[in-house]
Amino acid sequence: MPKVVDPEQRRASVAEAVWRVVLRNGLDGVSVRTVATEAGLSAGSLRHYFATQAEVLTFAMQLVIDRVRARVHVATTVRDVIGELLPLDAERRAEAEVWLAFSTRAQVDPTLRALRDTSYDLLEALCGRLVEAVAPGAQDVEVERLYALIDGLVLHAVMRPDRATPELLRTVVDRHLEELVH
Amino acid sequence: MPKVVDPEQRRASVAEAVWRVVLRNGLDGVSVRTVATEAGLSAGSLRHYFATQAEVLTFAMQLVIDRVRARVHVATTVRDVIGELLPLDAERRAEAEVWLAFSTRAQVDPTLRALRDTSYDLLEALCGRLVEAVAPGAQDVEVERLYALIDGLVLHAVMRPDRATPELLRTVVDRHLEELVH
Repeated sequence: MPKVVDPEQRRASVAEAVWRVVLRNGLDGVSVRTVATEAGLSAGSLRHYFATQAEVLTFAMQLVIDRVRARVHVATTVRDVIGELLPLDAERRAEAEVWLAFSTRAQVDPTLRALRDTSYDLLEALCGRLVEAVAPGAQDVEVERLYALIDGLVLHAVMRPDRATPELLRTVVDRHLEELVH
Repeated sequence: MPKVVDPEQRRASVAEAVWRVVLRNGLDGVSVRTVATEAGLSAGSLRHYFATQAEVLTFAMQLVIDRVRARVHVATTVRDVIGELLPLDAERRAEAEVWLAFSTRAQVDPTLRALRDTSYDLLEALCGRLVEAVAPGAQDVEVERLYALIDGLVLHAVMRPDRATPELLRTVVDRHLEELVH
């Protein structure tokens, strides 16, 4: 009897292999060969799940989006929702690294752009709801101000974890929310 | 008599060729061959100026830093200084694209990291001076809040110029400065 493999589970484990390759070598390191090796599969077997490199990358990014959405969905305060977007621990740091690498690559790879734009739109809409919850009737400019602040903090935490520590990120967000309320 | 070439001028024209390649194809597209072609030089001639790909990339990034510093130096208001950091026109947009590509690549290429960290430190110090100018004695957290806001706006303008327009960027910065003053 042939081994039964759950295709969705296999795809998820491949996506996580992509993550590890991205974190180690950047998106340049992602190829059918390197990902297959990382996932413990043959290149032929990997092609059964993903036909192109862009498909692999898109699936890994989609996994980031799904994970963030699931966590945001159960967060109960505005502060906690924002915390789920920030690289405050190893898991969220890995997501942020993949997000940054994917988003930067989308600048020059049109096949990745639609998903990057979708994640942008989701986060922009989320920031709109957060601002409305904290400061009902606030000006529209506050949505971009919060969203840019969050993405800047993510960027800094990814690039300079020694300067933009989890504690500093939390303090900045608390300061911003406190001021939005008033 | 052999042609006299100013080495500094040649290096700058090569760096600008790197920019064009980055904007078109990303940093993946940067090789001695592609940059030589873009600059109208032979690969051998290019190696006379830059021994490695990392040296070419570093020089292009250094050019961004030098240009931004020169403009910031002559800006007279806090608002104008911040404006020089934001991609409000084609020149500053190209700089921001190179900055993003370079900074992302530095995540996985240690040879680029020192210069990325230098540019981070310069901008952090600049934000410190801007906050002090606008709100003397403000809490330290305001420095990271301003810096993250600026980098988030740069990121958004590079990735979604349709949403994060120059007008919106200006409005967000004005709102933030107005609030820092009070």
